[in-house]
Amino acid sequence: MQKSITKIALAGSGNIAWHLANALKLQGYQITGIWSRNFSNARALAESCGSVACEEISDLGKSADLIIIAVADKAIEDVANAIRGFDGIVVHTAGSVSIDALKDFFKNCGVLYPLQTFSKGTPVNMREIPFFLESSSENVSQTIKQVALSLSDKVYQADSHQRILLHVAAVFAANYSNLMYTIGNEVIKSSGLPQEVLYPLILETARKAISGDPMKMQTGPARRNDTTTIEKHIEILASLPEYAELYRLLANLISKKYK
Amino acid sequence: MQKSITKIALAGSGNIAWHLANALKLQGYQITGIWSRNFSNARALAESCGSVACEEISDLGKSADLIIIAVADKAIEDVANAIRGFDGIVVHTAGSVSIDALKDFFKNCGVLYPLQTFSKGTPVNMREIPFFLESSSENVSQTIKQVALSLSDKVYQADSHQRILLHVAAVFAANYSNLMYTIGNEVIKSSGLPQEVLYPLILETARKAISGDPMKMQTGPARRNDTTTIEKHIEILASLPEYAELYRLLANLISKKYK
Repeated sequence: MQKSITKIALAGSGNIAWHLANALKLQGYQITGIWSRNFSNARALAESCGSVACEEISDLGKSADLIIIAVADKAIEDVANAIRGFDGIVVHTAGSVSIDALKDFFKNCGVLYPLQTFSKGTPVNMREIPFFLESSSENVSQTIKQVALSLSDKVYQADSHQRILLHVAAVFAANYSNLMYTIGNEVIKSSGLPQEVLYPLILETARKAISGDPMKMQTGPARRNDTTTIEKHIEILASLPEYAELYRLLANLISKKYK
Repeated sequence: MQKSITKIALAGSGNIAWHLANALKLQGYQITGIWSRNFSNARALAESCGSVACEEISDLGKSADLIIIAVADKAIEDVANAIRGFDGIVVHTAGSVSIDALKDFFKNCGVLYPLQTFSKGTPVNMREIPFFLESSSENVSQTIKQVALSLSDKVYQADSHQRILLHVAAVFAANYSNLMYTIGNEVIKSSGLPQEVLYPLILETARKAISGDPMKMQTGPARRNDTTTIEKHIEILASLPEYAELYRLLANLISKKYK
């Protein structure tokens, strides 16, 4: 059987690193070190989770069983290269980076991808967040599954191809829906009415989408193929031509989908 | 002072008519009649709110103080024409139809526009729903404000221009965000993972958006200008070319916005 790990080091001090380090600390893991490109960020995170900030990345693995690389996607390989020789398990947390980015450097490696939008100041219920795991071996798999299950009730296996699809889905469902909220807000501002008039609608739409199939919950002029209203809306967006064009494109997408 | 109204008739048996009739009944109004293009729908709605279905639309106003026209936008003028001569107040409930559509037919008219996505089976908290009012006179304004305040704590005045902007904002914030959820779901399905893995992300994104300015809450590859990830995502969407194109367009919109 694989050994249980107790000591974890983290590379990174961004939103994911911040939430993971603090959640792991709460679950009784010892956070043995934090390294970040920006030392003062590493120190702030280390203080928040009873750890120490490492000045030299090569020191990061010193007494750790597991190193979590939670840095920008494009920096993952550089970090992996800088800690090569570490003989524990190394995982990254990225949706769209293959496990192969680590396999060249480490015998025991994997991926621990939490599907959520993190902000430093905003607490999240970690137990509800789906974690997606990939591992270089069955032993590694068992070990990082134990870590993931200590944080969350929703732990799945997903290979690198599935994970990138997950990330794409998340971009649409979260980043792009947020863009739609932002555009809605801008339009509201132009009407002189307060932005909170949109809040019940935003929440209700999200609630409906997760209560069943959002495809079946679609409403609005495009769903009804109400071309009179669509044209009125595009006309009133004349002063925001980019949004007028986007409105038409999305209306056409919906009309086609429900034909 | 305007007289208080107690008797309300409704034209329409769709989602808005259904929710309004039942909410008004609960507030003690007498629903004197329901007319719908589809008589059996009118009868079903009438039964649910202790009213009667009218076979002839010309009978709808018989003992009512107020008629609410809650039909498809393009049918509003036909209904108004069919009940012309009614000497109470007539309002419609549409976001994108001007009050002028009623002014030709009625001296006392207005608009009562609830900004929410209604489904027949889904209960809503009417008190939270913003209602937007427009009126042909101060007297009518006072009367329909009384009706609106009996249903909701969020009652605003908005002229026809503001109301159409509200409707456009709602299309982006609700209909188009729902399209983003739908696309996210389709991508998840193609990965073989269960769609509920997206739910926490959808809810959290909506919650964040209403806790402040969604513009500031934007995350994701386009927000970080992470072109490597963006290109990977567009590549993996090759089998869904419409979504690949949409992905790029929205990524470009975000990149420009945050430059």
